Formats: sequence, C-alpha cells, structure tokens
Amino acid sequence: MLIKNRHTQFQLTLPEWLGQYIQDQDPIMPDMEKRMQFVISLARLNIEHNSGGPFGAAVFDMSANRLIAAGVNLVVTGNSSVWHAEIVAMILAQQAIGHFNFKKQDAPACELVTSTEPCAMCMGAIPWAGITQLVCGARDKDARGIGFDEGAKVKHWQKALRKRNITVIRDVCRDQAVQVLELYNQHNGMIYNG
Amino acid sequence: MLIKNRHTQFQLTLPEWLGQYIQDQDPIMPDMEKRMQFVISLARLNIEHNSGGPFGAAVFDMSANRLIAAGVNLVVTGNSSVWHAEIVAMILAQQAIGHFNFKKQDAPACELVTSTEPCAMCMGAIPWAGITQLVCGARDKDARGIGFDEGAKVKHWQKALRKRNITVIRDVCRDQAVQVLELYNQHNGMIYNG
Repeated sequence: MLIKNRHTQFQLTLPEWLGQYIQDQDPIMPDMEKRMQFVISLARLNIEHNSGGPFGAAVFDMSANRLIAAGVNLVVTGNSSVWHAEIVAMILAQQAIGHFNFKKQDAPACELVTSTEPCAMCMGAIPWAGITQLVCGARDKDARGIGFDEGAKVKHWQKALRKRNITVIRDVCRDQAVQVLELYNQHNGMIYNG
Repeated sequence: MLIKNRHTQFQLTLPEWLGQYIQDQDPIMPDMEKRMQFVISLARLNIEHNSGGPFGAAVFDMSANRLIAAGVNLVVTGNSSVWHAEIVAMILAQQAIGHFNFKKQDAPACELVTSTEPCAMCMGAIPWAGITQLVCGARDKDARGIGFDEGAKVKHWQKALRKRNITVIRDVCRDQAVQVLELYNQHNGMIYNG
C-alpha cells in the first residue's frame, strides 16, 4: 500500500447531522437524566446515520448545566482509533474554552456525560482534561457484552478517578443506554477493536 | 469567561520547525537506537522552540524501518490535554495509511517509538491503534521525577500490552532521554498536570 508519510496536520469535523442536531437543542439542560438522554440520542443517531460506533458524550459547564461541546465515536469514518466520543467532546470543549484544562482559574467546573463508561484510553484522558464530574450510562461490561474491548483499565477505576477528586456517577438511564448498544448489535455494527 | 460553544471542528498543525526537521531526515532508520535518538531530538527541540512538553514520539513501518509520522507534546500550545506526543504521532500515522488500525490487512506492522514511557491515556490508546511494537526511552518514573503525573495505569502495564501481542522494549537510550527531561526541568518548563 502507498503510505503518504510526513503528514504534519490533521483535522476532524463532526458529521453534518450532529452539528445540526446540536443547533436545534436548548444548550441548558438542568436535569442530569436529560443530559444523559441527550448523549444517548447522539449514540443512536450515530448508528442511524452510519457515521460511527454506538457512543455519544458531551461536556457541560456545571455552573449553568450548559452544553459546551458534544462528540460521537468517529473511529471508522474519521480514520483514527483515538476518536472515541469522550475524546472528541473533550477536545472540542477545550477548544471552546481556549485552554487544555477545565480546571484553569476562570473556567467553569466541567462535567463529562458519556453514554457508556470510558475505556482505558478515555479513563486515562479524563483527569488530564480537568473534568470535575463524570456521569455514565451503560456499564463497560455492557459494551463488552456486544463485543467491544474496553482495554486494560485499573481494576477499581472509579476509585482511581475519585482519588483525583473526580465525582463518578454510574447507571444513569442505563437501560436506555444499553438499548442503543443492542440496536448497534442488531444492525451488525462493526466491532472494530473486538 | 466567554465560552464559544457548539464547536464542530478542530484542527492540529505541527509546529513549523518540526515539519522542516522531518523533511531534512532520511526517513529510513534501520537502527533502533537511531530511531530513539530521533524522537529524543524531537523532545529536545520542542523545549528549545518552546512549543510544548519534553516528549517526542514517532510511528515507523517495521517492514522498512521507515518513518510514517512523528509527534511532539502540544498540550499547552495546542489547547488540548489530549495532544501527547504518542497520540499526535498515531493520529498522523493513521491519516497517512488512511485507516484507524495499523493491523488492517495490507498495512505494514507498525512500531511506536516514544522518548518516555506512555501515561495512562497513551497506554490505553496503543492497543486501539494496532501497534505491534512499543519502544521506550525514559521510564515513567523518570517523568514523575520531574513532577509529571503518569495517571492510573494498571500495575503491570507492560505485561498488559504483551498480553495483547504488543512487544514492549524499555530503556533504549534511557540516559539521553532522561537528560532531556532534566533540561526541561532546568528551564522551569510548565508541569501542566502535576
């Protein structure tokens, strides 16, 4: 195969449907279940539009419960294994605040809401971003249940995050989140790192 | 602070010096120490150009020991905690091969060479990318030694990677790699996630 080496630039653009969908939402979502249902709907729409894996995530300004940025899994369509929903949402949110750390002095405390518990990579990325609160829908074992590999995470990963002053809330609308994983499975969605 | 929300696109460009430096290299580097010295020189130049943290990494096509893509730490200048050298190099290399997985059928086996052992995030990212061999310079404890946090990695992280059929080679030119970390420390380089 031909390898075009010496690349020095890359770019990622969210799918068009997602930009439109975000525009149509009220960015203020005071209710945690509502915020979770928003990211679950992103996961579902990502399947329906055939734009990636069954995962959605978003970063919220906790002072106003205001959406800063959202992401979906774009591994296959974006040609990079790094484009998990959480990573995409965090990069876009950091771009929005113009800083690499949500805990910088005048930044709002930030919450990451994700439709499925983070894999090893995303779990490692969360403290670096300065996330204050992590809210999860489906469990990592639910993702494993349809064939996804979640990687080599420390055994008590929630405890490891809490030790770093990150609040971890699990099982929010878990049933609805699992339904989307199952939908992907029924559609014979690609299990790219199984 | 003003938050520009609803971002749907981001872009990362390597520093100009790096693009130029790569152009000037012979991309074929048959010797492992030579490949390591290359990424150590990236880490050193990243300090000297004030473009980021003291870390360099590159992805090589193992069939020809040919450079596919290189990266440096761009966390501060690139406004994202995700831009560790390994992540930047892997994204650029995946863009070069046009696929999210180096283990796709007609892709060459790929080696990731990094000036310091991977943090928790990068360690999690390595299996997803389909890396066949990981070559490390400084140890993670050397990075901790100057104040960097390496995150919550599984205790036997090399073993965890080897279990996934990834060869791990440590301590290649470790002294030279540590010297660059110390140089950063002497320059009072920013320890952004300490």
